Amino acid sequence: MKKSVPLYMISDSVGETSLKLVNAAAAQFPTVDFDLSYRFPFTKDEEELKSILSDALKDSAVVVTTLVSDNLTQIVEDFAERTGLQYINLMSQFMDIVHQKTGVAPLQQAGVVHKLNQEYFDRVAAIEFAVKYDDGKDAKGFLEADLVLLGISRTSKTPLSMYLANNRIKVANLPLIPEVPLPEQIKAVPKDKIVGLVIEPEVQKKIRMSRLNSLGLAENSRYSDINRIKEELDYALGVYDELGAFTLDVTNKSIEESATLICEHLDNFL
Amino acid sequence: MKKSVPLYMISDSVGETSLKLVNAAAAQFPTVDFDLSYRFPFTKDEEELKSILSDALKDSAVVVTTLVSDNLTQIVEDFAERTGLQYINLMSQFMDIVHQKTGVAPLQQAGVVHKLNQEYFDRVAAIEFAVKYDDGKDAKGFLEADLVLLGISRTSKTPLSMYLANNRIKVANLPLIPEVPLPEQIKAVPKDKIVGLVIEPEVQKKIRMSRLNSLGLAENSRYSDINRIKEELDYALGVYDELGAFTLDVTNKSIEESATLICEHLDNFL
Repeated sequence: MKKSVPLYMISDSVGETSLKLVNAAAAQFPTVDFDLSYRFPFTKDEEELKSILSDALKDSAVVVTTLVSDNLTQIVEDFAERTGLQYINLMSQFMDIVHQKTGVAPLQQAGVVHKLNQEYFDRVAAIEFAVKYDDGKDAKGFLEADLVLLGISRTSKTPLSMYLANNRIKVANLPLIPEVPLPEQIKAVPKDKIVGLVIEPEVQKKIRMSRLNSLGLAENSRYSDINRIKEELDYALGVYDELGAFTLDVTNKSIEESATLICEHLDNFL
Repeated sequence: MKKSVPLYMISDSVGETSLKLVNAAAAQFPTVDFDLSYRFPFTKDEEELKSILSDALKDSAVVVTTLVSDNLTQIVEDFAERTGLQYINLMSQFMDIVHQKTGVAPLQQAGVVHKLNQEYFDRVAAIEFAVKYDDGKDAKGFLEADLVLLGISRTSKTPLSMYLANNRIKVANLPLIPEVPLPEQIKAVPKDKIVGLVIEPEVQKKIRMSRLNSLGLAENSRYSDINRIKEELDYALGVYDELGAFTLDVTNKSIEESATLICEHLDNFL
């Protein structure tokens, strides 16, 4: 039987940091069954916090907190000391070091990371841009984009575009199909802004079969035929070569990994 | 003069957890100027790690690591002990507690969080869904969606849809305009799946003016007129009432905050 560990994530804001950490760390224990359903965002009330901690103790949970208020942090600390509850305070160690280094005291105000500032507007604009210029919908986008993603069908162009847009990069993407001529505009894009995605044919076949399956279609179509996939990839590689594109192999990479590698590439040029 | 603190984020994978933490914690020190440009993803080589640590020490930086390998963690620990470098290891404390609680040793393999599993496919499908059914493009989407977002122009429907899609929720959104009749399909959507966004008129005005500005248009159009905005909001509230929609005030909320509140609402019904 799998060992089961409930994880309590308590935050006075959204609690995204805890969730990221817990997902990353939990992946290191594939035989442990973590229960990630105990999320307590926007926890600001002391009594509410105490009651969550009591439940966590009963459940023998691991507690991860992102609390910016000293009061709340102290409650967790006192409770843990009294009861032996195991917890990790992600925020306080960082804040203590900065406080000590700079002499500046932290605000202790929850949710201040999110403001209606230029960064927010740029992010919204980039997301709207990526939606508008997804899938080669409008060739005008290539000339306005910070980045143009090329790839054959099912190389994660759309999710990658959205992920990068969330980081305020304006992305246009274009599916490559051997039978469809390239839009002229693409040739006017500086080559450092073009990223061509490639993927191992066998992995691509698996992804396309899953796609067909989810659409309720037969899995033995030309779309998932390994020779057709190789033909498409050959064509794509020719295009990347012609355009001088930066080529990225997305095989077995997550959206986050691919996006990080693309950002590293862009940093070298922008 | 603002105090300046360089932050080194070192990860053997993407390093998203560090970035989330650092952004959240840095917001607590508005008078400190954090330099977040020192990101070192995919750090797996011992010599490379040592050289990054030496640079961090020279820069008098705060170091945040997310390393799953004991070897690399030990190198950071030894270095810090020898030199006094201040660092936070986000991963190891969590992994130690789980190890101790379950007796299961962590894999220590970087990047295992990201797999080509059903979760990945569902996420890609949800993102593609959100792009396809953004902005009321196709009324069919309302009936297939897990969630329908309604709101007047500039209430963050698109970024919210994409954020939720990234969490595998299929979202369709529809802009509400008093002069445009509602699509019939919306009336067939169960009310628990409908979320209506509202916003304070003055804040909306500011957002719309910024939008006009970014489009290079005059800021005094009807679009940013406070009376027009109030008229649109009145109409929207009438629609929410008629449909029995869950109403969410997005004023001064970040995408993350609004999305978290929507997920809490959905959790109560799904």
